[in-house]
Amino acid sequence: MNYSIIRYILCRVLEFQAYFLALPCMVALIYGEREGWAYGVVMISCLLLGGLGKLKKAKSTVFYAREGFVTVSLSWILLSITGALPLFLSGQFPSYTDALFETISGLTTTGASILTDVEALCKCNLFWRSFTHWIGGMGVLVLILAILPLAGGYNMHLMRAESPGPTVGKLVPRVRHTARLLYEIYIFLTVVQIILLLITGMSPFEAMTLSFGTAGTGGFGVLNSSIGSYSIPSQVIITIFMILFGINFNVYYLFRAKKPLQALKCEEMRYYLGIILAAIVLITINIRGSFRSLFEAFHHAAFQVASIITTTGYSTADFDLWPQFSKVILVVLMFVGACAGSTGGGIKVSRIVIMMKMVKNELSHLIHPKRVRQVSFEYHVVNKEILRSISVFFIAYMMVYCISLVLISLDNLDFTTNFTAVAATLNNIGPGLEQVGPTANFSVFSQPAKYVLMFDMLAGRLELFPLLLLFTPYTWKRS
Amino acid sequence: MNYSIIRYILCRVLEFQAYFLALPCMVALIYGEREGWAYGVVMISCLLLGGLGKLKKAKSTVFYAREGFVTVSLSWILLSITGALPLFLSGQFPSYTDALFETISGLTTTGASILTDVEALCKCNLFWRSFTHWIGGMGVLVLILAILPLAGGYNMHLMRAESPGPTVGKLVPRVRHTARLLYEIYIFLTVVQIILLLITGMSPFEAMTLSFGTAGTGGFGVLNSSIGSYSIPSQVIITIFMILFGINFNVYYLFRAKKPLQALKCEEMRYYLGIILAAIVLITINIRGSFRSLFEAFHHAAFQVASIITTTGYSTADFDLWPQFSKVILVVLMFVGACAGSTGGGIKVSRIVIMMKMVKNELSHLIHPKRVRQVSFEYHVVNKEILRSISVFFIAYMMVYCISLVLISLDNLDFTTNFTAVAATLNNIGPGLEQVGPTANFSVFSQPAKYVLMFDMLAGRLELFPLLLLFTPYTWKRS
Repeated sequence: MNYSIIRYILCRVLEFQAYFLALPCMVALIYGEREGWAYGVVMISCLLLGGLGKLKKAKSTVFYAREGFVTVSLSWILLSITGALPLFLSGQFPSYTDALFETISGLTTTGASILTDVEALCKCNLFWRSFTHWIGGMGVLVLILAILPLAGGYNMHLMRAESPGPTVGKLVPRVRHTARLLYEIYIFLTVVQIILLLITGMSPFEAMTLSFGTAGTGGFGVLNSSIGSYSIPSQVIITIFMILFGINFNVYYLFRAKKPLQALKCEEMRYYLGIILAAIVLITINIRGSFRSLFEAFHHAAFQVASIITTTGYSTADFDLWPQFSKVILVVLMFVGACAGSTGGGIKVSRIVIMMKMVKNELSHLIHPKRVRQVSFEYHVVNKEILRSISVFFIAYMMVYCISLVLISLDNLDFTTNFTAVAATLNNIGPGLEQVGPTANFSVFSQPAKYVLMFDMLAGRLELFPLLLLFTPYTWKRS
Repeated sequence: MNYSIIRYILCRVLEFQAYFLALPCMVALIYGEREGWAYGVVMISCLLLGGLGKLKKAKSTVFYAREGFVTVSLSWILLSITGALPLFLSGQFPSYTDALFETISGLTTTGASILTDVEALCKCNLFWRSFTHWIGGMGVLVLILAILPLAGGYNMHLMRAESPGPTVGKLVPRVRHTARLLYEIYIFLTVVQIILLLITGMSPFEAMTLSFGTAGTGGFGVLNSSIGSYSIPSQVIITIFMILFGINFNVYYLFRAKKPLQALKCEEMRYYLGIILAAIVLITINIRGSFRSLFEAFHHAAFQVASIITTTGYSTADFDLWPQFSKVILVVLMFVGACAGSTGGGIKVSRIVIMMKMVKNELSHLIHPKRVRQVSFEYHVVNKEILRSISVFFIAYMMVYCISLVLISLDNLDFTTNFTAVAATLNNIGPGLEQVGPTANFSVFSQPAKYVLMFDMLAGRLELFPLLLLFTPYTWKRS
């Protein structure tokens, strides 16, 4: 293991964290909030530590997959630990564990909160919470790759370990160019959403924070009612942008490259939109009776479906009060998740579709054992290695799920709460059902259970393996 | 598709059903119960239909995997439909759907009941319910293969489609011989259990019915309190025999072949016993406070763990009242299930162990992408085709799970009830939690939901694919 290069990159990450922290500092200045000092102190500390650390260059540039996974996992842990400091120092969080939970929830774009009263937070804390969504959505290392002229083979390993979905970095051959393109599209869409929300009459602060939360598919709001008390046009815009940020960014790249027909052919997007439409129709019919008009039922069904499948976690209604059928559909969507190569979490639509095709193939294989049939996706045959890795991901995912469920059940909360709390954190959604429903929060859990859920949030965002590798002896063996 | 041979085998199945039905007829005669007429009428009908049908020999003996799957699925459906008739005709079941649910639950060794008062049933109905467990445990077609001198290539296809677990028929090269060996061991163990239960002072009727339920890992009892009101020695014997019937029968074959050392080396059995031990210890510690002594806590923990992991479903205590930690462990064990090649259901220990090894392998593969590592099990390398089929099984299993959960949620019962009802039926266990807990029953569900759960029971017993293939167009296409 090349520890010196890992140290070097971690110092650059710390430096970037300082730049990120400059933003809530400015917010504190604008609103004249005293809590700004916490951000200032942490910012300067990060800058000093990172700046001094990076002076000592890495001894070797050897960088393999192993270093990539470890660097990405440690970067995220470092960002979480330092990012939680100002929240804790501001005195608005009951403990450092809670501040850490909130920061990890922000960075991993989960949006699960331990706060009972979000509105009591100062503006700079609210801004920081939402901004962590935006950073975490596309990824910090992707940002560093886009900006810094890092040479060597490690770009791809970092990119692969941080980006969600079974395939990555296929946009253009050069990693740095891909990273830039992704951020260009990301910034463009975020800015368009901010402008549209401003037009609907939202304040600049709310338009920005809510757009950060939508873009990163995060889910932290600035009001206790989440998105419930905004105007219908604002809610509609957020619905549409949640769905947009859940689409594979490859589609936007193709639009940008003036290949709209090819973009619209994207198989994953078609399945994704199909699932959304089906879920909205079924839930609208199911909840019709509880609303004054069909439009209102449709509006809330659409918002919640978009919020859950993209793993954002905003809410306009307390879906925990909806009939079981609607709730179970939402729980299933929690696992499906958004498209690969988007900012959303979950298992990802592409994996689900490929797995369904594997089952279909197996049925035909059982009938005609000698006939060779292959799984194809996005108009190409999927090679066996990818099929294998998707299966193993799914198995590992279910194992992490089960172990987490057993561990947090020591708190003795009810089964539905436990089940959906793990679903909501491992899939980076935010709210679950019952005691972690949309009007409740994660403060019901004990400190040990919160650490389990923090692990799940990070494991979910980094797609399990980078984080699991930290706990594997192989990783640390000198080879 | 060779329909004529399928018809021929189905007629033989009907003939065997008549022989099975002769037993409750005898029970009715012994106890002088009028309900015996229902069994007599159905028995004679089956005998006539099956006897007449088999006179017309099959046109061709062509028999491939396709015919194997269809024959097995249709046989089980036929046995369920005809087996439910005497229960319905006896007038002790509210509807034919309920009688069908009870019969499928019996044959698939699930043990989920729709009855609120089991003790109100006549002896012949009680006997029949329990006897279906015994038939279903080892399989009807396996029995037919063991008895009838069927020639041709179809033996293996039938055996494979009906027997649980990823590998089958490895005991000895000849299928018929394997089928006989399995039944010999099965009968021997059942008889030993009956004798031991008689020694503890149980009545012959109870000793037989409860042994049938244990042997098939079924779970129907003859008292409303399941096993709760029997003596401690009886409960201990049932605990031990549940665990024994959950072991891969290969182990018994090796003992019988005087290879005890090889038998004890069975990797699947070691994991199975290890999981049981770990679960008992954890649950004993967790429930210690609710019992008068450590022994009592241990006794009930052992009984419930054995009952759930072997997917039997008997109970001595209302584990729905236990702390969440214990309940969640039991829910996880529901999915693990017993050993392959046993009479138990669930995903099976061997599949779980192999999947865990796949994940472990993936972690090492990510670190050293060029190093080739293989998964080994039972001291042999597992070939890629088996790894693939295990993954696909797991994926298909989760899909059937999710679809069933969505469908039964239309009844608007709570999430825990729905979740564990599907778990309890798809894994052929019996009781779940909440409204389908050990002291409750499945009568809370609507007729459509009951059909979904019936499908799950059959799908679980036949390990999904035979039943799924009935609904696949490929199966019915003329090739």
